Amino acid sequence: MSDRIFDAAGLQGVLARLRQNAPRIHCLTNPVAQTFTANVLLALGAVPSMTLSVDEVAGFAASADGLLVNLGMLEPERRAAIPLAVDAARQAGKPIVLDPVFVQRSPSRCALAREILAGGVSLLKSNREEMDVLFPDRDGAQRLAKQETALVVTGAEDDIVYSGRQVRLANGSPLLAQVTATGCALGAVLAACLAVEPDPLIAAASGVSIFNIAAELAADRSRGPGSLVPELLDALYLLNEGDLQRHLGVVHAGDILDRRTL
Amino acid sequence: MSDRIFDAAGLQGVLARLRQNAPRIHCLTNPVAQTFTANVLLALGAVPSMTLSVDEVAGFAASADGLLVNLGMLEPERRAAIPLAVDAARQAGKPIVLDPVFVQRSPSRCALAREILAGGVSLLKSNREEMDVLFPDRDGAQRLAKQETALVVTGAEDDIVYSGRQVRLANGSPLLAQVTATGCALGAVLAACLAVEPDPLIAAASGVSIFNIAAELAADRSRGPGSLVPELLDALYLLNEGDLQRHLGVVHAGDILDRRTL
Amino acid sequence: MSDRIFDAAGLQGVLARLRQNAPRIHCLTNPVAQTFTANVLLALGAVPSMTLSVDEVAGFAASADGLLVNLGMLEPERRAAIPLAVDAARQAGKPIVLDPVFVQRSPSRCALAREILAGGVSLLKSNREEMDVLFPDRDGAQRLAKQETALVVTGAEDDIVYSGRQVRLANGSPLLAQVTATGCALGAVLAACLAVEPDPLIAAASGVSIFNIAAELAADRSRGPGSLVPELLDALYLLNEGDLQRHLGVVHAGDILDRRTL
Repeated sequence: MSDRIFDAAGLQGVLARLRQNAPRIHCLTNPVAQTFTANVLLALGAVPSMTLSVDEVAGFAASADGLLVNLGMLEPERRAAIPLAVDAARQAGKPIVLDPVFVQRSPSRCALAREILAGGVSLLKSNREEMDVLFPDRDGAQRLAKQETALVVTGAEDDIVYSGRQVRLANGSPLLAQVTATGCALGAVLAACLAVEPDPLIAAASGVSIFNIAAELAADRSRGPGSLVPELLDALYLLNEGDLQRHLGVVHAGDILDRRTL
Repeated sequence: MSDRIFDAAGLQGVLARLRQNAPRIHCLTNPVAQTFTANVLLALGAVPSMTLSVDEVAGFAASADGLLVNLGMLEPERRAAIPLAVDAARQAGKPIVLDPVFVQRSPSRCALAREILAGGVSLLKSNREEMDVLFPDRDGAQRLAKQETALVVTGAEDDIVYSGRQVRLANGSPLLAQVTATGCALGAVLAACLAVEPDPLIAAASGVSIFNIAAELAADRSRGPGSLVPELLDALYLLNEGDLQRHLGVVHAGDILDRRTL
Repeated sequence: MSDRIFDAAGLQGVLARLRQNAPRIHCLTNPVAQTFTANVLLALGAVPSMTLSVDEVAGFAASADGLLVNLGMLEPERRAAIPLAVDAARQAGKPIVLDPVFVQRSPSRCALAREILAGGVSLLKSNREEMDVLFPDRDGAQRLAKQETALVVTGAEDDIVYSGRQVRLANGSPLLAQVTATGCALGAVLAACLAVEPDPLIAAASGVSIFNIAAELAADRSRGPGSLVPELLDALYLLNEGDLQRHLGVVHAGDILDRRTL
């Protein structure tokens, strides 16, 4: 294991640059997640924009520092906006994060996710169930690796895979699962980290760590999922280098551990 | 009064089964209510889904354990989705809750509410004003009773009527009225209770009691409507058998008290 | 400086009438802001309504006590609803507040904002950047003054200009900028104040003061932007005459200080 791949120093640098650069992330995300996602970005020092209008979205996406495409709920208006925003971000060379929410339950979302992936994105964030539906064979996943797309596979532990290397992280709180849209908001944090860190592995591992360490600190101060929301936003706002140093839970940083995550 | 109709033991059983079975409730609800409704269901141990897309909604509704149809705001997309979801839930035999928000101010919502009621729903949740508009004569309400639709009429006290029996409950907090979407979220809780309790009277009385007892506990810890939101979610998450026993406010459980509620 | 133009007594009167009259404000606002805006109005004792449906919106706007038109995100459905609501409010003589969010980034929003302004609104709330795009020459701003439109220009200090008079206020908290939709919610508060106070200058200065004094009190109790949200709603709910007296930050109340704000 090479602890040079991802460590507290790298993580601290990403958080500092987030606050310094204040990247604007254009978020095409589901209505349930919009307000919380905007507040997560603001608490971190980043800036959200959210318009879905087809006559505006390309301009907003091209001028942003990153784009989040979340397929949850996928109302027709957002579906129409997504290709315009993705094309604009690609042409402008901006990082794109895809979160293929519930593709296992919707053939139309699955088709759209595959189409977006085929054109190339910076990062795919999914859980194991969504991965299995998107990549029923391993060849598809290998192709994804060739396209230089970073993978974040969330679960009890979180795996980040990019360019033949893997980081496994063990931060977080079970309370996160009892608040809606926490996974969706993580997608926006990942886009913000990609906007300030050129190495996708470090950016992705930093985004997961920042969000999940803040969640741990927040859960320690919460009675339940209701108080977790304000506590998590406060924790993201107050997070400092010492917190990151003390709480970072790197289980592995080095070669690929598990072929199934490719 | 027969206290066998609804009592703390019945209520405790419903809460235990909610947490054990984790029913998924598909919610077609207004945009203002979506996030809070999702968080209320999650805090209780249930699972929300919310898509409105016409190509997805029937599948999501049929595979859910219950359906909430809330007419607040009624944007065109949701209006198009509602009949598809209602048909799918009916065919799959899943409980349906209708919340006819503001039908007194919108003829088109009123017409849609009547159309849905004519086809049969498991539970109608409304306030007195909405009831008066939906049922200007008593015959309509009698027909509803024949369709085996449970009624929840909210107010200073809450009435639940089903199959010739009535429960009147006196829990809650005045602060609930100063937070948006609390009534809408109650609709989702009612659907979740119907998913785990076959007797609609007990299910409905349990849903009202769980929500309103949690609100009482939360109000005791709140300075105002802002802190009520996290406190209410925490209270739903932490609610235990003793709380239900101590706070349950059954004013009546037995024969129909008041013909006007039919 | 004439401190008769706007002082604590005038402000206290507006807050008292808000709570007594409970004006209903119809809000055509962006999805990210809807829930928070509704909760801000409810915490103050006002009543929100939010439907965007083209078959309902004119009726809801005409029967409300005020209308908020916020151009953030501007999805097609809201864009279609806005002219109907504005016409209905104008014909019914109800106050209209326009918040031209991000017109500097969207030519189509800018065109719509100019069209609404040309027809006359009670109050335009904007920041300096939006003002510069809406009024590249001063003649446009002079025309606005002739139309009896009050201006609220937000910034480090907030300027209110109406009918040759100006109030400059210095309340607020930097934390407000790290919570989404706080400026959007202020627009709804301004509409509520116009519904209970006939002098647009006093109404606008009261709305800004109520919101920003509550924010100061809330920030003193907050660890970060997460806790600010419940604290701000509690503070709006608990705000009393003494708070307003002690905290009101009038920098100027009298003649126009700065021609650029016209």
